[in-house]
Amino acid sequence: MAGNSFGRIFRITTFGESHGNGLGVVIDGCPPRIPLTREDFVRDMVRRRPGAAPVASPRKEADQVEIQSGVFEDITTGAPLMLFIRNQDADSRPYEVLREVFRPGHGDYSYFRKYGHFDFRGGGRYSARETAARVAAGVVAGKILDPLGVKVVAYTLELGGVKAKDIDLSLIEKSLFFCPDLLASKKMEEIVSNARKEENSLGGIVEILVKGCPAGLGEPVFDKLDADLAKAIMSVGTVKGVEIGAGFEAVRLRGSENNDPITPKGFRSNHAGGILGGISNGDDIVLRAAMKPVPSINLEQDTIDRKGQPSKLRFAGRHDIASIPRIVPVLEAMVKLVLADHYLRSKAIDSNDSQRRQF
Amino acid sequence: MAGNSFGRIFRITTFGESHGNGLGVVIDGCPPRIPLTREDFVRDMVRRRPGAAPVASPRKEADQVEIQSGVFEDITTGAPLMLFIRNQDADSRPYEVLREVFRPGHGDYSYFRKYGHFDFRGGGRYSARETAARVAAGVVAGKILDPLGVKVVAYTLELGGVKAKDIDLSLIEKSLFFCPDLLASKKMEEIVSNARKEENSLGGIVEILVKGCPAGLGEPVFDKLDADLAKAIMSVGTVKGVEIGAGFEAVRLRGSENNDPITPKGFRSNHAGGILGGISNGDDIVLRAAMKPVPSINLEQDTIDRKGQPSKLRFAGRHDIASIPRIVPVLEAMVKLVLADHYLRSKAIDSNDSQRRQF
Amino acid sequence: MAGNSFGRIFRITTFGESHGNGLGVVIDGCPPRIPLTREDFVRDMVRRRPGAAPVASPRKEADQVEIQSGVFEDITTGAPLMLFIRNQDADSRPYEVLREVFRPGHGDYSYFRKYGHFDFRGGGRYSARETAARVAAGVVAGKILDPLGVKVVAYTLELGGVKAKDIDLSLIEKSLFFCPDLLASKKMEEIVSNARKEENSLGGIVEILVKGCPAGLGEPVFDKLDADLAKAIMSVGTVKGVEIGAGFEAVRLRGSENNDPITPKGFRSNHAGGILGGISNGDDIVLRAAMKPVPSINLEQDTIDRKGQPSKLRFAGRHDIASIPRIVPVLEAMVKLVLADHYLRSKAIDSNDSQRRQF
Amino acid sequence: MAGNSFGRIFRITTFGESHGNGLGVVIDGCPPRIPLTREDFVRDMVRRRPGAAPVASPRKEADQVEIQSGVFEDITTGAPLMLFIRNQDADSRPYEVLREVFRPGHGDYSYFRKYGHFDFRGGGRYSARETAARVAAGVVAGKILDPLGVKVVAYTLELGGVKAKDIDLSLIEKSLFFCPDLLASKKMEEIVSNARKEENSLGGIVEILVKGCPAGLGEPVFDKLDADLAKAIMSVGTVKGVEIGAGFEAVRLRGSENNDPITPKGFRSNHAGGILGGISNGDDIVLRAAMKPVPSINLEQDTIDRKGQPSKLRFAGRHDIASIPRIVPVLEAMVKLVLADHYLRSKAIDSNDSQRRQF
Repeated sequence: MAGNSFGRIFRITTFGESHGNGLGVVIDGCPPRIPLTREDFVRDMVRRRPGAAPVASPRKEADQVEIQSGVFEDITTGAPLMLFIRNQDADSRPYEVLREVFRPGHGDYSYFRKYGHFDFRGGGRYSARETAARVAAGVVAGKILDPLGVKVVAYTLELGGVKAKDIDLSLIEKSLFFCPDLLASKKMEEIVSNARKEENSLGGIVEILVKGCPAGLGEPVFDKLDADLAKAIMSVGTVKGVEIGAGFEAVRLRGSENNDPITPKGFRSNHAGGILGGISNGDDIVLRAAMKPVPSINLEQDTIDRKGQPSKLRFAGRHDIASIPRIVPVLEAMVKLVLADHYLRSKAIDSNDSQRRQF
Repeated sequence: MAGNSFGRIFRITTFGESHGNGLGVVIDGCPPRIPLTREDFVRDMVRRRPGAAPVASPRKEADQVEIQSGVFEDITTGAPLMLFIRNQDADSRPYEVLREVFRPGHGDYSYFRKYGHFDFRGGGRYSARETAARVAAGVVAGKILDPLGVKVVAYTLELGGVKAKDIDLSLIEKSLFFCPDLLASKKMEEIVSNARKEENSLGGIVEILVKGCPAGLGEPVFDKLDADLAKAIMSVGTVKGVEIGAGFEAVRLRGSENNDPITPKGFRSNHAGGILGGISNGDDIVLRAAMKPVPSINLEQDTIDRKGQPSKLRFAGRHDIASIPRIVPVLEAMVKLVLADHYLRSKAIDSNDSQRRQF
Repeated sequence: MAGNSFGRIFRITTFGESHGNGLGVVIDGCPPRIPLTREDFVRDMVRRRPGAAPVASPRKEADQVEIQSGVFEDITTGAPLMLFIRNQDADSRPYEVLREVFRPGHGDYSYFRKYGHFDFRGGGRYSARETAARVAAGVVAGKILDPLGVKVVAYTLELGGVKAKDIDLSLIEKSLFFCPDLLASKKMEEIVSNARKEENSLGGIVEILVKGCPAGLGEPVFDKLDADLAKAIMSVGTVKGVEIGAGFEAVRLRGSENNDPITPKGFRSNHAGGILGGISNGDDIVLRAAMKPVPSINLEQDTIDRKGQPSKLRFAGRHDIASIPRIVPVLEAMVKLVLADHYLRSKAIDSNDSQRRQF
Repeated sequence: MAGNSFGRIFRITTFGESHGNGLGVVIDGCPPRIPLTREDFVRDMVRRRPGAAPVASPRKEADQVEIQSGVFEDITTGAPLMLFIRNQDADSRPYEVLREVFRPGHGDYSYFRKYGHFDFRGGGRYSARETAARVAAGVVAGKILDPLGVKVVAYTLELGGVKAKDIDLSLIEKSLFFCPDLLASKKMEEIVSNARKEENSLGGIVEILVKGCPAGLGEPVFDKLDADLAKAIMSVGTVKGVEIGAGFEAVRLRGSENNDPITPKGFRSNHAGGILGGISNGDDIVLRAAMKPVPSINLEQDTIDRKGQPSKLRFAGRHDIASIPRIVPVLEAMVKLVLADHYLRSKAIDSNDSQRRQF
């Protein structure tokens, strides 16, 4: 109810602050007897880790995921999983100035208006560090999707105005920005380097692709698969827009152009982005998220203090130049969480009639 | 759980099909002692009514809202409200062909894959007619927002490629398309008329503006106000994208350009769209939704039948050329539902300390 | 959130008042392709009907269930079901006195304190008539349980001090009080007749037995099967106590007496009442509910009016002498709703490994 | 959904196993700016601690509650609280035998049938130790109730057949069994000592009394206050029955005897137990819970192994003779959780009209 839970059956609840003891997540609704060890989390936690790329914050953290409950003899038991990620390198002294002054573009001001009291150290609860718990939960969601053959992959389409042109998914992990066009990736390095010198920040676009999603996921009329995906993505900080399939481009198409003809071998095009009437149709799911430039910059900005008086802020904290690339595994995690949850939801009311699902 | 409910405290559950007995909604969580009569629903039901504009379907319906429970002596009692809208002009014979053949761009195929059985008459549950219940519920949500001074207004920014340029909100109700630029509205009439002749359909963009929203609404980290608004909007059929504030444009701004400086009199700009860290900041909330062209067209299309065999479909049903203008009051309703719910949620944990909310 | 919904996956939301247009329920989460027609509701609605027995209110109602949505061609579609039961014989004039004066033992006073406004005609929302919607929903829940071989049967153990001794389940429907001991049933007729003459009312005990419940239903640690059953039963008006298995008698047993030994053929006794650790163990589930005497009596009682002034009330409305026998199908319905919901919940996280479920 | 969460607004999710790293709870929905330190937990954790009384298990644990998130500078922030209680003295070797054989009266068998895999060490998830997290959460709930003047106190009415007669609430904390009759408490010591010699166990009855509960809490028709209390209490292991007010005794009263007359000074009697129509009426709330004898005994018992073969079990683990007295603070905690949640729920839809609440 207070907003820190997500999902209906595969339900996660996150907790923790940027400069408190750590971040964590409780997963209630994970099926029993799924193999799970702490090694399973390493890949995605490393991909999300700060300092992994020139664009990222120099703050170093091991970000090891501790399985505190719900696993016995390396297998899930059906009891709630608690995953915990301790904070280690978390010097909160630089943030003392934020006790009085609101950072533009951050949640400082709105949190103060809502709660009157909050842990402002490094953004506290609304720090991007909160997403570490999401990534950990996404790994477990992936364990449900893997046996189904569902693959979720995200990558950078645009950063600081530089766009990927030739998309080769096999190159994603070779790019510092998870960009499937290494030439564009090279240019992104340059523009990021410039922005760093200017003490400024950059925005970008990430595309998320789901291959192998079975038809039939999504619950009309409000928990449509696209609606839940939109919420999942918009719930990530710095995201200001989300679109599916043809998205905003569909606005200028005619119905005859935008409709995807159906053939015995599948859809002839995919303007729908894999979802019709809120239900997956078996085609690839395609989503794009628009990230604003991260609000943390070292330039002086106009603001006010807690008493409403005008103030100037030049805050030289450690921060990323862009939410890309670290946001890429976060968006993958959010999509996995939605899909795993909807898959389990579909099982609940499934009539076990395999016939209708095939041709 | 099966997706037909929305909201946490002000919680609606809709039901009904396009060609069944009618559409309805149960509202559980409406505060007691709010004056409410059936006349309160007339304005928005008329604005949503088919046939009100050249772009709309010629199907005529009274769409009167019947209050079946929860109101006594014209005042809400705190018991659940049931609002019912009977179907009247609902000839389902033309839809008999859809028993076997899937319409491209509609939910026919995905519903079949999910349920194996569904009411295909006029789209059944996934008909745009389902939104009538949303509009009715939105009227009640509005009764909660009105005393707070919150105003929600939506309008057409673009239709079939024609864009509004000079925005004058006072003109919205004078336009057949709820377009705040009457010159653009005139051009939209023309392009709609052409599309009708071509038996094709059009997409568009609607902007939703919220004035007077108090600071402090939204529940981090998943039920952020922007996340819940994104879900609400994406849950409306034909919407393929949603953005807030600067939206996709923010991608190309620097942090120093995109951050909204804070002054004692408020924010100097509003790239944030009125929401920071997922919580309303007191500024106007600004959202935009991208609508695909409605999939119902009278041109012949390639498809398959229920046995997976190739087929041709030319379906001459009654339909709108675009979801605009009828979607405009629907989007207003969805935003009202989110705001009323979050307002009640904020009351639940409010510490009644008015001091912190002011300067 | 406002309390009119029950269940997580098979989720019902009821609405309506005793003297309004009618009572109804929306069921969201009913699996598709279950055969369902209005005839399916007749048996239980008749069993719950007022006037069917000497103990019951003389108010006559057809109580026909109208399927308003969610069924197409006599089969559920997966869309929400709305079931409606119109009020017909509902003369509300006698209740006008209740505008000012609170009836002892009823919800009048507490509703007034909570809402400040309510439909007091015949109890309005807190009338026993509200249970009609529960019974209708229970019929649909039964459609999910029937194919599993789960049988839910309730019967009267005690009424007005008369206890059933020889339990023969085959006699239940032959008793006016659904009492499995016809000799006791005869005595109940007498004591009810006397209470009617004295214008007083009676309490009783109903036992609910579930045969054929599969092992594995229930979700620890809060949604234990017994916990959800206790809530379901206690949510029915006039119920003041609920126990499972040995219940309050277990208090005086030693562990060695109360533990049910396990054998290859099953449990040697059933003090547990079919549930261990909150999860069904495959044995019969046995519950008992204690009903207070209905608060409606025609004797003069001390009370106060809305201004807090002392008053006398002698209210000669139509009412039952006891909640038995009409509560019997209501309790069956509540148990069915819990079981159907937990069955669907168990399907969601089931690992499809039939081996572990057998020996 | 998987049952480890409780409450709607003040929502807790517990996790952890008896012999894993520890037990914990996440509280989402705690209002901001409530003073909270780890010292606040000491009193109730000590009262629940094993080994505090002769009846209790000799296992020693500090059971210190660590506040891992949601508190900043000793005040709640509105972010989720995570409270953690580490396991320390947890030798799991004696439980190795339970890998193959089910203990009668415990959840071993039903967990195996449900999950096929579980942490059987010391009962794992269904150990009574799980209630430590409930007690910790109850302390925070108490912080919401205290300023309202709501007092929740539980005490032992009966243990092993010995009943309290003269109830003096001021003596509760002087009794090893939280029994308000010290003479009875003395007899309880004796009977417990005897049961320990016999290697057997005992059941009992606990009464829970709430003083100062405001009128108006509870949400009809399913989330009635008594229904939610019944669920809360029944969700505690070893509870087999719950009653409110006159409870099972009401069955033998006439309506004229059971109805509580209303006077300008309040109710003349309290058979209702403080709740009418599911809503608190301002009078004391009175509940009773029936506890079965704890299933852990050292006598030999008949059972089966995982292959379904007959087996004998004599398990000499550490265990309590009765769930009393340690269950007493657990039941207090459960009642506090329900009341705090319903209080916040009532705030959400409160119309802020203090007038109606008074006379």
